[in-house]
Amino acid sequence: MTTLSPQARQALSHVSTATLATALFKRGLRNQCLQNVHPLQPGLPNMVGPAYTLRYIPAREDLNPIQVFENPEHPQRKAVEQCPPGAVLVMDSRKDPRAASAGSILVTRLMRRGVAGVVTDGGFRDSPEIARLAIPAYHQRPSAPTNLCLHQAVDIGLPIACGDVAVFPGDIMVGDAEAVVVIPAAMAEEIAREAEQMTVFEDFVTEQVQAGASIVGLYPPTDPAIRQRFEAWRQQQGR
Amino acid sequence: MTTLSPQARQALSHVSTATLATALFKRGLRNQCLQNVHPLQPGLPNMVGPAYTLRYIPAREDLNPIQVFENPEHPQRKAVEQCPPGAVLVMDSRKDPRAASAGSILVTRLMRRGVAGVVTDGGFRDSPEIARLAIPAYHQRPSAPTNLCLHQAVDIGLPIACGDVAVFPGDIMVGDAEAVVVIPAAMAEEIAREAEQMTVFEDFVTEQVQAGASIVGLYPPTDPAIRQRFEAWRQQQGR
Amino acid sequence: MTTLSPQARQALSHVSTATLATALFKRGLRNQCLQNVHPLQPGLPNMVGPAYTLRYIPAREDLNPIQVFENPEHPQRKAVEQCPPGAVLVMDSRKDPRAASAGSILVTRLMRRGVAGVVTDGGFRDSPEIARLAIPAYHQRPSAPTNLCLHQAVDIGLPIACGDVAVFPGDIMVGDAEAVVVIPAAMAEEIAREAEQMTVFEDFVTEQVQAGASIVGLYPPTDPAIRQRFEAWRQQQGR
Amino acid sequence: MTTLSPQARQALSHVSTATLATALFKRGLRNQCLQNVHPLQPGLPNMVGPAYTLRYIPAREDLNPIQVFENPEHPQRKAVEQCPPGAVLVMDSRKDPRAASAGSILVTRLMRRGVAGVVTDGGFRDSPEIARLAIPAYHQRPSAPTNLCLHQAVDIGLPIACGDVAVFPGDIMVGDAEAVVVIPAAMAEEIAREAEQMTVFEDFVTEQVQAGASIVGLYPPTDPAIRQRFEAWRQQQGR
Amino acid sequence: MTTLSPQARQALSHVSTATLATALFKRGLRNQCLQNVHPLQPGLPNMVGPAYTLRYIPAREDLNPIQVFENPEHPQRKAVEQCPPGAVLVMDSRKDPRAASAGSILVTRLMRRGVAGVVTDGGFRDSPEIARLAIPAYHQRPSAPTNLCLHQAVDIGLPIACGDVAVFPGDIMVGDAEAVVVIPAAMAEEIAREAEQMTVFEDFVTEQVQAGASIVGLYPPTDPAIRQRFEAWRQQQGR
Amino acid sequence: MTTLSPQARQALSHVSTATLATALFKRGLRNQCLQNVHPLQPGLPNMVGPAYTLRYIPAREDLNPIQVFENPEHPQRKAVEQCPPGAVLVMDSRKDPRAASAGSILVTRLMRRGVAGVVTDGGFRDSPEIARLAIPAYHQRPSAPTNLCLHQAVDIGLPIACGDVAVFPGDIMVGDAEAVVVIPAAMAEEIAREAEQMTVFEDFVTEQVQAGASIVGLYPPTDPAIRQRFEAWRQQQGR
Repeated sequence: MTTLSPQARQALSHVSTATLATALFKRGLRNQCLQNVHPLQPGLPNMVGPAYTLRYIPAREDLNPIQVFENPEHPQRKAVEQCPPGAVLVMDSRKDPRAASAGSILVTRLMRRGVAGVVTDGGFRDSPEIARLAIPAYHQRPSAPTNLCLHQAVDIGLPIACGDVAVFPGDIMVGDAEAVVVIPAAMAEEIAREAEQMTVFEDFVTEQVQAGASIVGLYPPTDPAIRQRFEAWRQQQGR
Repeated sequence: MTTLSPQARQALSHVSTATLATALFKRGLRNQCLQNVHPLQPGLPNMVGPAYTLRYIPAREDLNPIQVFENPEHPQRKAVEQCPPGAVLVMDSRKDPRAASAGSILVTRLMRRGVAGVVTDGGFRDSPEIARLAIPAYHQRPSAPTNLCLHQAVDIGLPIACGDVAVFPGDIMVGDAEAVVVIPAAMAEEIAREAEQMTVFEDFVTEQVQAGASIVGLYPPTDPAIRQRFEAWRQQQGR
Repeated sequence: MTTLSPQARQALSHVSTATLATALFKRGLRNQCLQNVHPLQPGLPNMVGPAYTLRYIPAREDLNPIQVFENPEHPQRKAVEQCPPGAVLVMDSRKDPRAASAGSILVTRLMRRGVAGVVTDGGFRDSPEIARLAIPAYHQRPSAPTNLCLHQAVDIGLPIACGDVAVFPGDIMVGDAEAVVVIPAAMAEEIAREAEQMTVFEDFVTEQVQAGASIVGLYPPTDPAIRQRFEAWRQQQGR
Repeated sequence: MTTLSPQARQALSHVSTATLATALFKRGLRNQCLQNVHPLQPGLPNMVGPAYTLRYIPAREDLNPIQVFENPEHPQRKAVEQCPPGAVLVMDSRKDPRAASAGSILVTRLMRRGVAGVVTDGGFRDSPEIARLAIPAYHQRPSAPTNLCLHQAVDIGLPIACGDVAVFPGDIMVGDAEAVVVIPAAMAEEIAREAEQMTVFEDFVTEQVQAGASIVGLYPPTDPAIRQRFEAWRQQQGR
Repeated sequence: MTTLSPQARQALSHVSTATLATALFKRGLRNQCLQNVHPLQPGLPNMVGPAYTLRYIPAREDLNPIQVFENPEHPQRKAVEQCPPGAVLVMDSRKDPRAASAGSILVTRLMRRGVAGVVTDGGFRDSPEIARLAIPAYHQRPSAPTNLCLHQAVDIGLPIACGDVAVFPGDIMVGDAEAVVVIPAAMAEEIAREAEQMTVFEDFVTEQVQAGASIVGLYPPTDPAIRQRFEAWRQQQGR
Repeated sequence: MTTLSPQARQALSHVSTATLATALFKRGLRNQCLQNVHPLQPGLPNMVGPAYTLRYIPAREDLNPIQVFENPEHPQRKAVEQCPPGAVLVMDSRKDPRAASAGSILVTRLMRRGVAGVVTDGGFRDSPEIARLAIPAYHQRPSAPTNLCLHQAVDIGLPIACGDVAVFPGDIMVGDAEAVVVIPAAMAEEIAREAEQMTVFEDFVTEQVQAGASIVGLYPPTDPAIRQRFEAWRQQQGR
């Protein structure tokens, strides 16, 4: 499991997925934002943590009667009990929200175990209950049917697809009120630092634009005077 | 029209569509939740009532000038005036939300007539107004254009497709803040009883998990000690 | 740029997109509502203004490094600085929300410049911030990646497609809490007047239906007694 | 059942669906071509005949065991035995080709009974066998699963949707190597005559363009000299 | 790897995927036909063999330069060299045909190695060349871009999704001119025998229907006289 | 208009779109193949020529009566008469094949004028006739309705989107039996040379693999002995 420095975790808790996406784009990575995956609780702080992966394939009827959940080795149940505290459980549901990836009882258990968040490119059932829990959860849309209708959990800890993005176990998942972004583990520290710096500048720009400034020369700061003004502002703000 | 016992209606008012979907799955019915159909007023109590169906086909331009609504026999208008109080008006809009299935005036009339809810797999127009009405309404997404652009109402009281699910007149429709589920009329009493029981157990599980219990042995309750504890809890709760 | 009379602007600020869609339908225009384009701030007053258009094509990687924004002539940045106050910036993003059409800094600038609204058939980034701004914004769904991943701005002021609708520069864009409708410039005054009249009648109908009236003979008013009652009500209301 | 005059049937056998679509467009009907429905045997003569409709809804598992076909009143089987010779069996499969609408045995039976063609907006199974039969068949794509997986036949002889087009029983279906078009019954004679005339002119235009003529003034024939030349050509051709 | 008896292999070589789908449906398996996967060479004999699986996830740009193919351990290349003769290489391409799953050189190598077929739910590049090879190949549609654009091969020999169907290594894949069906390994012998018997009966029915018989009582054979006639025919045919 | 050297044109006539896609991928361009655009006449030689662009937006009903074609300045008709011989007419139809982009008369005219090919991301009408013409044509699928139903031609010679790819006027379009690829004008000579070289090597590899060679060390040629053997083969072949 990736070890994320406290500074990086702290930084990633206060930057936006949009800013992270730009930092990744600058390194040639254009496809790190999960597509069509949305927060259930937009008011929560950022979700930050290494990915712990669970993979579903289509459910074959004879292998998926309701009794399968009696087996404590069922990969979905095992993932819920073994996902490390501080990690993010990421599920590959093949972008199919027609049956649930999980429901409120499992998500409550993840919350109680200290897991940092839960993500699927399918849907959650009991979504109104999940929306009241204090663990960040992200999905495509609510889905009442049990996962056994369409999804068979097959393995844990492998690279997966989620929302059309590659997710390797240990990649750093960051979610805000807009989206979820996947940061390759090896670049997480560097991206965290850079995104933090970018955020300081974006805050300055927003303040200027709110005050009536044109974006020309300011965003990006091609005008040297702007860059000077930014440095002054920054010192003044103590950032 | 299906007669639903007061007990069943009461039970269905307090269980979730997720629980109902699992009860139906146990009987081999995997496809009873309307896909991609969402509540406009997630805060209302459950919608419960037998289905009263209206079917649309694509609108042919020469048959659908604005004047068609002057005819009191127009099937959409007739459905609005004749859907029985306590029933749910379910519309087959072929999953096409590019023009409206109905608007706020018709939905207000349904509410005033005591209809239990209104469902389409297309979209409603005047959706902000409908969202303020006290009749549960479910659709795919808001849709401002008049139904005449794309939908011609052709008949009432036939089996239809809605959200990729078969809906027979008299099937019991239940909607909550997450979804709408269709219970075949002949199983409604039995499913209602079973879902009520399942809900008691799920409430117990949720309480245990919130308190820190593992799901192993608890959900499902393979551990006999858990089953005992549940029976005790249940008695204590008087459920 | 279309000159909209103050009366028409005032009228369009108080009618719904559903009513406008019906008025357009009566003139044979069935396809003037942007499909799958939603408000970020459903609580704002109507957006009204002539369209100022920006067109994106797919981004070719070698032409879209991060440095392109240093050029003040970049069409996206130019559009943001030159869209006239009172106009609506409408972006053809080919219905592709996988990368952003714009973000909160640009939208803030538009707001500060007095632009009347901003519309894309793709997605906005920084959507939580935009949702707190006082300029109406409409998109398909949130999208964190920078537009450079997928969208290259190529020109301003041409006819475009947006949400499967033709938008000519100067067409009058009206948005409410449900949708955005495009009124051809030449009919805007007439449609505004007609929609205002329709709204008076719809308000009457709503009041009647809320009070328990049947829609038969009322909506549409085929019953002469209803038409009399409406005229009386109207005088009483002073509308 | 619509009675089509021998002349109209003959004319419709020799015009293209593209020409018919234009004739319908001139009368304000823009949506009479089945979308995404393709011929299995592009080499056959045109399919022409009145629509005989069959409607499917989603299959509920308990109502659709393999035994249902033992019932001679099963609507699919009844449609195959009762569709009149010279008519076209048109099936509303809700554009879902994931299970078959019918297979080669039923289509062979239709052929032997003198039915003029068979159309679905879903898929046929045994499509390689059907492709060798001498009855025109049109579908979206091959589909091996039995219809019982997803489609329950519910009624015959009602207005349906097929390929996003309204099909009323008795409407005249015409199919060629490109598409299937639906001609409202009441206009069939007139459209047949007009399309025949249009075809004569299009043949003339094609000959001219093959010989090197510009389309300006020719197509459409705004140049009076062209119109004269056409009349001469026509007389010469005896059409 | 599943051992398929010579009799079963022989039987599966002469039955259709439609017949197999019905045999599986009778056992409660409704979803064993790959959706939207088509043959490149419809004229070849049936493809029959146990599944050997390869899984792709979305390609991250930094991990997928052209040089990755220099590594003989690259899973795609390894799969091509290690898929057993007589087996079928089945690729999970997440139903995404925007970049190729493989091209003609790899497919030629599979053919030369005696592999029984190759299947993807994405697309092949060099599809015109593959269409001329004597190894059955199935895909969604042609796709010229190299797989590195969108697909990163990650592992071999795991359960996968292909065309919305669960494929476990060793499941028996059968493809004909219409489709590909997946037979769970444990039922392959039994399904092969049953499908062979069903085919004999279907051939009889087809002959009867071609000769003018009604399907009532014949298909299914509810009429005892028909069953007698079938037994006689069967003896006469020596089947 | 781009001037393509005779050598480059010759080279591009004999390489595959798959090879070109790889050459472009090596330069960081991953998205130069038109998605879901297919040849109508797979037997023709490669299409090669600079892009001449035509753009459609959605058709507004009042602006698109049948009479618009009487105007010789209508952009569609103008494009057909003015597209330079040797160029390729590329149409942005917003990936919408529900109405035609053009029909056989216009395509015949293009052929007679010496145009090198015609491409749309929508559909052609009269597709069976076009399939018999000797000008390469590429589309998504056949479409019988006139373009006036859905597409309004607005301009010529601007950058467009086609099949999700950016096409700038003068970019070199190459089409084969599989796909269409867009080569940025400035790299066309270099890509042509490189693809020609790649093709020589691929032919060698195919011959080796057909003869039984493993792909390891051969494709790519990491084994120096292979590279020597290739050089010898090449000299022998005189390529």
